[in-house]
Amino acid sequence: MNSLKAGILGATGAVGQKFIRLLENHPWFKITALGASGRSAGKPYRKAANWVEPVPLPESIAGLEVRECKTTNFDDVDFVFSGLDSSVAGKIEKEFAASGIPVISNAKNFRMHPDVPLLVPEVNPDHIDLIDRQEFSGDGGWIVTNPNCVVIPLVMSLSPLEKVYGVESVILTSMQAISGAGYPGVPSLDILGNVLPFIPGEEPKIESEPLKLLGTLEEGKVRDAGFSIRATATRVPVRNGHLLSVNASLTHKPSGLEEVIDLFENWQSPLAEHDLPSAPSRPLWMHKNNDHPQPLLHAEEEKAMRTSIGRVRVDDNGTVSFVAMAHNTVRGAAGGAILNAELLVAKGKLTPAAERSPG
Amino acid sequence: MNSLKAGILGATGAVGQKFIRLLENHPWFKITALGASGRSAGKPYRKAANWVEPVPLPESIAGLEVRECKTTNFDDVDFVFSGLDSSVAGKIEKEFAASGIPVISNAKNFRMHPDVPLLVPEVNPDHIDLIDRQEFSGDGGWIVTNPNCVVIPLVMSLSPLEKVYGVESVILTSMQAISGAGYPGVPSLDILGNVLPFIPGEEPKIESEPLKLLGTLEEGKVRDAGFSIRATATRVPVRNGHLLSVNASLTHKPSGLEEVIDLFENWQSPLAEHDLPSAPSRPLWMHKNNDHPQPLLHAEEEKAMRTSIGRVRVDDNGTVSFVAMAHNTVRGAAGGAILNAELLVAKGKLTPAAERSPG
Amino acid sequence: MNSLKAGILGATGAVGQKFIRLLENHPWFKITALGASGRSAGKPYRKAANWVEPVPLPESIAGLEVRECKTTNFDDVDFVFSGLDSSVAGKIEKEFAASGIPVISNAKNFRMHPDVPLLVPEVNPDHIDLIDRQEFSGDGGWIVTNPNCVVIPLVMSLSPLEKVYGVESVILTSMQAISGAGYPGVPSLDILGNVLPFIPGEEPKIESEPLKLLGTLEEGKVRDAGFSIRATATRVPVRNGHLLSVNASLTHKPSGLEEVIDLFENWQSPLAEHDLPSAPSRPLWMHKNNDHPQPLLHAEEEKAMRTSIGRVRVDDNGTVSFVAMAHNTVRGAAGGAILNAELLVAKGKLTPAAERSPG
Amino acid sequence: MNSLKAGILGATGAVGQKFIRLLENHPWFKITALGASGRSAGKPYRKAANWVEPVPLPESIAGLEVRECKTTNFDDVDFVFSGLDSSVAGKIEKEFAASGIPVISNAKNFRMHPDVPLLVPEVNPDHIDLIDRQEFSGDGGWIVTNPNCVVIPLVMSLSPLEKVYGVESVILTSMQAISGAGYPGVPSLDILGNVLPFIPGEEPKIESEPLKLLGTLEEGKVRDAGFSIRATATRVPVRNGHLLSVNASLTHKPSGLEEVIDLFENWQSPLAEHDLPSAPSRPLWMHKNNDHPQPLLHAEEEKAMRTSIGRVRVDDNGTVSFVAMAHNTVRGAAGGAILNAELLVAKGKLTPAAERSPG
Repeated sequence: MNSLKAGILGATGAVGQKFIRLLENHPWFKITALGASGRSAGKPYRKAANWVEPVPLPESIAGLEVRECKTTNFDDVDFVFSGLDSSVAGKIEKEFAASGIPVISNAKNFRMHPDVPLLVPEVNPDHIDLIDRQEFSGDGGWIVTNPNCVVIPLVMSLSPLEKVYGVESVILTSMQAISGAGYPGVPSLDILGNVLPFIPGEEPKIESEPLKLLGTLEEGKVRDAGFSIRATATRVPVRNGHLLSVNASLTHKPSGLEEVIDLFENWQSPLAEHDLPSAPSRPLWMHKNNDHPQPLLHAEEEKAMRTSIGRVRVDDNGTVSFVAMAHNTVRGAAGGAILNAELLVAKGKLTPAAERSPG
Repeated sequence: MNSLKAGILGATGAVGQKFIRLLENHPWFKITALGASGRSAGKPYRKAANWVEPVPLPESIAGLEVRECKTTNFDDVDFVFSGLDSSVAGKIEKEFAASGIPVISNAKNFRMHPDVPLLVPEVNPDHIDLIDRQEFSGDGGWIVTNPNCVVIPLVMSLSPLEKVYGVESVILTSMQAISGAGYPGVPSLDILGNVLPFIPGEEPKIESEPLKLLGTLEEGKVRDAGFSIRATATRVPVRNGHLLSVNASLTHKPSGLEEVIDLFENWQSPLAEHDLPSAPSRPLWMHKNNDHPQPLLHAEEEKAMRTSIGRVRVDDNGTVSFVAMAHNTVRGAAGGAILNAELLVAKGKLTPAAERSPG
Repeated sequence: MNSLKAGILGATGAVGQKFIRLLENHPWFKITALGASGRSAGKPYRKAANWVEPVPLPESIAGLEVRECKTTNFDDVDFVFSGLDSSVAGKIEKEFAASGIPVISNAKNFRMHPDVPLLVPEVNPDHIDLIDRQEFSGDGGWIVTNPNCVVIPLVMSLSPLEKVYGVESVILTSMQAISGAGYPGVPSLDILGNVLPFIPGEEPKIESEPLKLLGTLEEGKVRDAGFSIRATATRVPVRNGHLLSVNASLTHKPSGLEEVIDLFENWQSPLAEHDLPSAPSRPLWMHKNNDHPQPLLHAEEEKAMRTSIGRVRVDDNGTVSFVAMAHNTVRGAAGGAILNAELLVAKGKLTPAAERSPG
Repeated sequence: MNSLKAGILGATGAVGQKFIRLLENHPWFKITALGASGRSAGKPYRKAANWVEPVPLPESIAGLEVRECKTTNFDDVDFVFSGLDSSVAGKIEKEFAASGIPVISNAKNFRMHPDVPLLVPEVNPDHIDLIDRQEFSGDGGWIVTNPNCVVIPLVMSLSPLEKVYGVESVILTSMQAISGAGYPGVPSLDILGNVLPFIPGEEPKIESEPLKLLGTLEEGKVRDAGFSIRATATRVPVRNGHLLSVNASLTHKPSGLEEVIDLFENWQSPLAEHDLPSAPSRPLWMHKNNDHPQPLLHAEEEKAMRTSIGRVRVDDNGTVSFVAMAHNTVRGAAGGAILNAELLVAKGKLTPAAERSPG
């Protein structure tokens, strides 16, 4: 298979840099265009970006000239990943989709749009079909999004429960890593030896996005899952890995703790058949040691694409309590978007521009 | 008022040291005896203890000779504070009570004993009357306990809700400071830049002690509060201050957010009349800034005796969510025990040994 | 004694806020005017400033209207403290001095000016006389500065060595707290679990300012001390307290370790006679425990105005090695400036404006 | 080449675990025997050890039965790595060497023995010849040691300076990671947000071992390098990577900064010819960015076997100042020992037991 040519929108930011790092040596995708603000346009990437990833900037990227995020500057790519800030993502992503360029976005702007898939490949791969309904998109173009970084471990763990028992309501507290705030992000004076009990804008996303993700596709529309979520999002002095303490009240009572543990342990990924390059072999891992999972020990497992679960408990009313954890900037952002792109390739939705151009 | 002569059992440990620090210059209590294991007995305190409090060891204490924790060694005190480890507290505290020496204990051993008050002065001062029923106590002796360090901010905040609305069930996640594990306690390799999702032995206490504390005294017995608690206890890299994310489902639905905020803001401490030396002027403080409370900024307020509340939210079903925080080693341990002793003095239960000795 | 009316230039910044906190309840000085940039002018302080001190903003300050830093706005003060950023301090401080308003500055701009005292009261109180030579100052006005935050513990510990043995050369490594970079300052992603081997602009100050401070006043001019300093400034994940590892090669060899320890222990502050409100009773404290001093345990001692010394060693060549530590934002900045002002009052140099105005 | 069969002495400790992790998949060495105290003997390794490495315990090791560290239990290995605690290493290592089993040790006990090589392959490979003089060793047996973890980056950076300019004296301050203290090691209460100005037992090693390492082999004996070292060892809240601030006074003055930078940049490893599996391709890396090296960013480079240098400065007297950093538990301990073993193989000193046993 020939590589697809990928552009990166918002290439100089924290998410854009993570895309660049994760796509180095990707077997299917090759970065051929980098987009940023007009201020960076025209400069080689090494000068435009303040590279903060803890690995060297790939040489093949360092010399690429940064382009302004205009569609006419990207007529040589097959699709784009978007790590754009939400303040500009709405306008730019729509322009790209309208001009026929597929957009795989990490931005929040279109996540809740009824015709845009909010996609986690292991959870709702069928939602991909929504892209056929995007009236705002031009020929061959569309937008697909991945959820907020907390939502990934949440839906990965709720999905099996929802299918087997039904979920009535969820109460969770997140302990989120500082990398989630980008760079420079959280001032050290705020967080060293401290916990912040609030993250602006975070809780509404955690309380809404899972309902769409776990919703069912009926007659071309997503019917949201019918439960409520109450989230309290906190910031802790951890580098990578968001840890969630989740309590799920279920419709049907499990027979006992072992049944729930078995459910998590034996869960089968629907991706197994596709052999996607970024898919973890075990996307959900059930820890039986009470001390696990920990962000420090487990966030990087399976190339930081795994969701770890632990401390499962079941009370007399059938409420299941557990902790869940995933790497927030890989699985929860750029890595999740790349997995989305891989699924779209496997499903035949993402193809070389030359093949899909009608004329 | 003349000072009461206080002994400290477990004086060389972390809780014992905190007692010593907090009682320096106390207007009512004067430390006159220090008890520890046989290994330390006979040594001056400065040699027996590895002093870790961040203030100098009081000179008046440094030279005191440490005694073994036998009742015959403490016949010159009016009462004792116990910071004993639970592995020995059960036997020793019982011996002291049986021999007529009142014990104000921070240990867990007798907290759930039906005849022992589990006491938070602002919450259940009437439970003091249980001490009259302690058959295991000798003339003038008794045991009073304070709860686990997480339970303090939990019952301080649940108490007003329970009284006004009734509590149906509680789900909480605690983010607990490293000082809660004593010294040497948590290895730095485990916690630096990390969160531990489990604290051995902690959750059962959090799930049971509040029910006794918020219970009602009926015919000399405590009838436990009738709700359930689900706790997930985690350890975070914070020095002092346990932060709780609490969700309380209520029997009667509040009219709205403002009503709940008003309830917390206007809550009146039953201690106001007593003018106890260690009582905070505002034991419950309602923060309106979403970023507050934080362990780093607020744990030390009001000499570390205050419970801080913030982030109050009410959902459509009347479930109230909020965060609560208190200093774990002061309010949650030694400071709480000292406040218990002060209330017992104010209520006439704790008096000079000479006055209560029958013969 | 009546209070002197003090203005604060740069009142909304980190240093300005520290001035406000430290001057609350000061027996000699009362803040009556707050100066900041034109952007803040006209607003009440509580709205102009993002208050980050870990204590509540004093009520008496919260409502004060912020003024632009123009001399005509400050004709009602006796003097000003300057916490201005160095980008503007040069121009503004000169204007104030020229217009007859004494300036006690924490900014670096005039520290090395030959006619401006670079003052540490315990070290070079006689340098105050330089203010009589300031041709740029108007009637009654002058500028006095305090040194860089690392320089305080350095000259406090070198001063006794220089006087008794003579110093030939100094090599030091500083481990500096994050509060030294202000707010938002150091990003948490840079410093959590890390050490930064460089602090921009810091080393040249550490290598030059002590030479002026330890210089001798001869015929109205400072002759710099004649030794060399090599500094390596690093940033560590500590909140407050700069720790220095110092090696001083001496002209005359000490007789041994005990002699040097005695020198530090018996050092007498020249301030003892003045009874200044902010002067620590023991400005220099010699720790004999090898594990001390530590920023966490000792930075706050004596209201954070003390320099702590420890780990003194002497090698065969007479080189003395030790660690020294002081609180960087109190003793090393605002607190040091306040102590300077107190000395100037005691020496009769700082007086009510009414008394010194000629016409 | 067939694998050599390696035993691990002290296999359950922190260094032993690191040996096991680093030797998984090693092309030359295969672990076939694990030694620990009598308490662990007889248990499978997975039960005997509290595995703390952040990767899973290799399956091939988990089931190996732990043996007591007696020579008769290790007659089936070609040699042993020793991660023994110094309290027992002296006796056990000598017994192994005496019985004809080569010992590659990380313990300090024999480092300064005149007949034992204290070896850093890039620095003093010729010192290997000392093993022929070990009278305490039996037929085919010997002991080779690697230095203290701080000494590695120190001698890696001093070695080129010593050869070209001669070193007169060295003053250094180390900022050492918590992993250097093993597990449980440094209590979090001591180090979170703090710096400890002392590490027991560390400075004498730093001040003596480099002199042997940089010494010259003359007539079968090491003549120590003739300069003095003054070290101040501190502990910082960093996980891995010891950072050193070094000042080296030189015999011959460099012509300037560029000459010293060139020296470090163009330094050639004497190992290049050998192609050792664990040798970094560039054992010494010269950073030109003032902010580098940092433990967090650079300790893991080249499989954590590299020494990073930065912030090079030269003063008027020819004193060179710089920072140096290396991973303390890999390059500074188990990894360094493995590299020693590889060099010994390449030099023909370490061979299969069968080949060297005379009878």
